[in-house]
Amino acid sequence: MNKIHIVGLGLLGGSFGLGARRKFPEMTITGTDISTQNQKDALTLGIITKAQDKPDLDTDIVILATPADTLGDLLIQTLDKVGENTLVIDLGSTKSKLCLQLAGHPKRKQYLAGHPIAGTEYSGPKAAFADLLDRKVMILCEMEKTDLHLKEKAYELFDALNLKLRFMDPDEHDRHLAFVSHLSHISSFMLGKTVLQKMEDEKNIFDMAGSGFASTVRLAKSSPAMWAPILTENKDNILASLDGYISNLTALREKIASSDGEGIYKELEEINKIRDILDLGR
Amino acid sequence: MNKIHIVGLGLLGGSFGLGARRKFPEMTITGTDISTQNQKDALTLGIITKAQDKPDLDTDIVILATPADTLGDLLIQTLDKVGENTLVIDLGSTKSKLCLQLAGHPKRKQYLAGHPIAGTEYSGPKAAFADLLDRKVMILCEMEKTDLHLKEKAYELFDALNLKLRFMDPDEHDRHLAFVSHLSHISSFMLGKTVLQKMEDEKNIFDMAGSGFASTVRLAKSSPAMWAPILTENKDNILASLDGYISNLTALREKIASSDGEGIYKELEEINKIRDILDLGR
Repeated sequence: MNKIHIVGLGLLGGSFGLGARRKFPEMTITGTDISTQNQKDALTLGIITKAQDKPDLDTDIVILATPADTLGDLLIQTLDKVGENTLVIDLGSTKSKLCLQLAGHPKRKQYLAGHPIAGTEYSGPKAAFADLLDRKVMILCEMEKTDLHLKEKAYELFDALNLKLRFMDPDEHDRHLAFVSHLSHISSFMLGKTVLQKMEDEKNIFDMAGSGFASTVRLAKSSPAMWAPILTENKDNILASLDGYISNLTALREKIASSDGEGIYKELEEINKIRDILDLGR
Repeated sequence: MNKIHIVGLGLLGGSFGLGARRKFPEMTITGTDISTQNQKDALTLGIITKAQDKPDLDTDIVILATPADTLGDLLIQTLDKVGENTLVIDLGSTKSKLCLQLAGHPKRKQYLAGHPIAGTEYSGPKAAFADLLDRKVMILCEMEKTDLHLKEKAYELFDALNLKLRFMDPDEHDRHLAFVSHLSHISSFMLGKTVLQKMEDEKNIFDMAGSGFASTVRLAKSSPAMWAPILTENKDNILASLDGYISNLTALREKIASSDGEGIYKELEEINKIRDILDLGR
């Protein structure tokens, strides 16, 4: 593999560039970002070796790492123009709509739908680091639709970055992610909002916050440019998860209002079994 | 200071013991726990030097580190029997009701209402460690009601543990903590519940969970024995915070349902200002 091209040089696209360059120091990495500042920073930070809008025709892999709602059009435009030995991978957090949009594209075989489960609450090229993807899960959808030869290139890059590959149906992906990722971000953003509203009356409220609050509210620092599109792109699944969440909160609210200490105890104890599940994954 | 007595040898009581012994190796630390296993573990782990139900009459400080709903009665019983040079401190997460209950006690001067903002999602003596309290905030309420001489003993212990002292009115304490601590635990427990419910239909859902989910759901591992009583003890403030939270979630739900990408973006961007506030505290 000699050449990759990255569109979107933020936290994720930038970390792909840094990770790939560490493993393949001779590789040419071209790239572009809608923000000229980000593009400049990416060059300075060594994420890309050359800034350019379009991938060269001999590019091995084009990586699209832009917000979820831009990927459909961008994928079609990119596939239309790439050389016949180029693989195009998107890293979007939602997959069903994209796979459906691309289903009839004449170059569908040159597309691979991916989603690395990796990120932090920070964004932009300066937040990127070569180890972000190390030992993280990379979900791949509809692998059978991608050309066998081009898939080999993807495996080479993913192995170099030390990603753990998982294969999923795109609908299943979107259903799962609504619960184990998108809902977490919503709960955190709304927790931040609720405390900020309270701060208008009560000064210094944050002085009393401990590590528990910091942990639950961390994701409220996440990029709106990334997250607002995810919430609308995966709307149906997110509404299902959010309705379940609100309904659980409302039921607990009633137990608290009626001072049902025993009922609350039993409920919290039942939820504690998440310990075993989470610790299994460690 | 020669002798302290700890009632409740879990994460918090245990960490007080370990921290105090590290600083004052010659100190006698007696203590008791309702669980004989915890009491045995506390002796083995060096949290206490001797297990005994009641504090000796020459004990300098008695620390009560039991669940929030047990502290009222326990405080009264303990104060009734302690020597006149003994200070009794409780470490409960709620303060208004306790201060009110103790207001008329003849030995009110020998009581200090405290709340260290320190903890982890684990519990019991084996979860305790000497550094848990290092550089953590210790909230003290109604300091003016505690005997000046006895307060000096508390300062000596708190300084030894490297606690940062803050003084607050008990009502203000309970209002603030509902938002920056109790609500975080509720949001986390209910997030855990929502995903566990989904898991009944969708196996392997946790395979897709990244660090964001781990962070928001961490507190769902917390002890029900500690948290169920807090939720009922601080009921009014918690209902206020929870109602605000549910109302914010419901409003965002409507924006998602109507695919209001711009409205969602603006809202998340506004909440991002929590970055500056949280980073200030670092």
